[in-house]
Amino acid sequence: MPSPFRHPLRVRFHECDPQGIVFNANFLAYADIAMTELYREAFGSWQAAMEAGSVDMVVAEANVHYLAPLHFDEEIELVASVTRIGTTATTTLIAVERDGATIAEVTLRHVVVDPETRAKAPIPDPMRSVLERFAV
Amino acid sequence: MPSPFRHPLRVRFHECDPQGIVFNANFLAYADIAMTELYREAFGSWQAAMEAGSVDMVVAEANVHYLAPLHFDEEIELVASVTRIGTTATTTLIAVERDGATIAEVTLRHVVVDPETRAKAPIPDPMRSVLERFAV
Amino acid sequence: MPSPFRHPLRVRFHECDPQGIVFNANFLAYADIAMTELYREAFGSWQAAMEAGSVDMVVAEANVHYLAPLHFDEEIELVASVTRIGTTATTTLIAVERDGATIAEVTLRHVVVDPETRAKAPIPDPMRSVLERFAV
Amino acid sequence: MPSPFRHPLRVRFHECDPQGIVFNANFLAYADIAMTELYREAFGSWQAAMEAGSVDMVVAEANVHYLAPLHFDEEIELVASVTRIGTTATTTLIAVERDGATIAEVTLRHVVVDPETRAKAPIPDPMRSVLERFAV
Repeated sequence: MPSPFRHPLRVRFHECDPQGIVFNANFLAYADIAMTELYREAFGSWQAAMEAGSVDMVVAEANVHYLAPLHFDEEIELVASVTRIGTTATTTLIAVERDGATIAEVTLRHVVVDPETRAKAPIPDPMRSVLERFAV
Repeated sequence: MPSPFRHPLRVRFHECDPQGIVFNANFLAYADIAMTELYREAFGSWQAAMEAGSVDMVVAEANVHYLAPLHFDEEIELVASVTRIGTTATTTLIAVERDGATIAEVTLRHVVVDPETRAKAPIPDPMRSVLERFAV
Repeated sequence: MPSPFRHPLRVRFHECDPQGIVFNANFLAYADIAMTELYREAFGSWQAAMEAGSVDMVVAEANVHYLAPLHFDEEIELVASVTRIGTTATTTLIAVERDGATIAEVTLRHVVVDPETRAKAPIPDPMRSVLERFAV
Repeated sequence: MPSPFRHPLRVRFHECDPQGIVFNANFLAYADIAMTELYREAFGSWQAAMEAGSVDMVVAEANVHYLAPLHFDEEIELVASVTRIGTTATTTLIAVERDGATIAEVTLRHVVVDPETRAKAPIPDPMRSVLERFAV
């Protein structure tokens, strides 16, 4: 049974704003780190995954639900799972958790593109097989 | 007839990533600037709006559609309009435009809260009246 | 008589930290903007300057003196002057001013390099002539 | 014999600029992380150190020497040592190392201030004793 990928992190001072909480845009930066680490776990690295499939991937849509504030120095876990593997696109859900409570949920839709033409391209089968390990 | 609020901006070098394009999280930073400037136009400043209404506002949800890449030094316009004024929440659409073409669309849902209890609070009527000028 | 180059700016919310002041690292980001704008004024653009001289420039040293705190929404001026034009390196002083008072002083030493070998290279004479307009 | 404090880190994608290297300002962000972690090791946390001494500390000067470029995903070590403990100020040297090679050296001078008046204040003796463990 597949299980979500978890990556621990500690909130940095400069990620917080004058309200003393993590600035809203930085949750997308956290989600980007989660993607990097999930692809490291799955393929060795993000770059290795792209090169193995002769593809590139770009973010087409991002959605963030903010449920509670997050503060300087707090320890969090980024919990990532692939929630959809389509023909040319994947959807990844990244929950930001603190002590087991969900602070925010980020959903990223990535589109696979041809590295030369930048046109949509099908997800290579080997990449699909590996990603299914992280699907829930 | 209300018209969207426009704020010009130039892409900074450090807002771009190794792909040479604006990093995806920075579109939320741009949207935050658009909100600040829209509230300056509408109320004098964000802070003035909050103090006049004895409220605070927090981001509850953010959505970004990425339509085209944006590069260093390009000049853009942030085009903001209030698309929904509910009982306790507002929705704002911020389009990022370059030469009239839409590069990205950011939707932000803000919830009005009591500054002390942090509980949801109704949008004060004077604030509602002013925001309607920016509704489309 | 040469005079320093001035570029206005307004402090963004997310450039400030939980102390409510601009985070110390962001003064280097401001200095980078000042360099970009000075080279735009001098050469059309940073990139144009590099291409015209068939060189590249890298930051070798940065120094910041913090004299007073800077807050969200404050309007500042970046005041840049070239203080030294050596054989292979330039020094630029960028003062961050608010209402005529100096908030911080950033000194950047850039080294001119060959774009291929990345070895130090002499400042091209035409570039030197232009930069002297901004020397004080 | 005191030895420098070491903290490992991995370069994040969005810390890199279109040249594919860590943007120069981010070395100050790294230095800030090193200070946070050194004070955690020394005092439990930065905040605990300030509260125990009834003081605050502000950055008065920062200097960065850039020796080599740093790239996405590279693993580094922040190596911090207190190089001077004066009457009202400390100097900390933070070396950024990759595979034992020094990539950059950051020097930060912090001034101890009274939390109310913001005037310079002497370093409390207990704080001084602890910091000496990290002096070299």
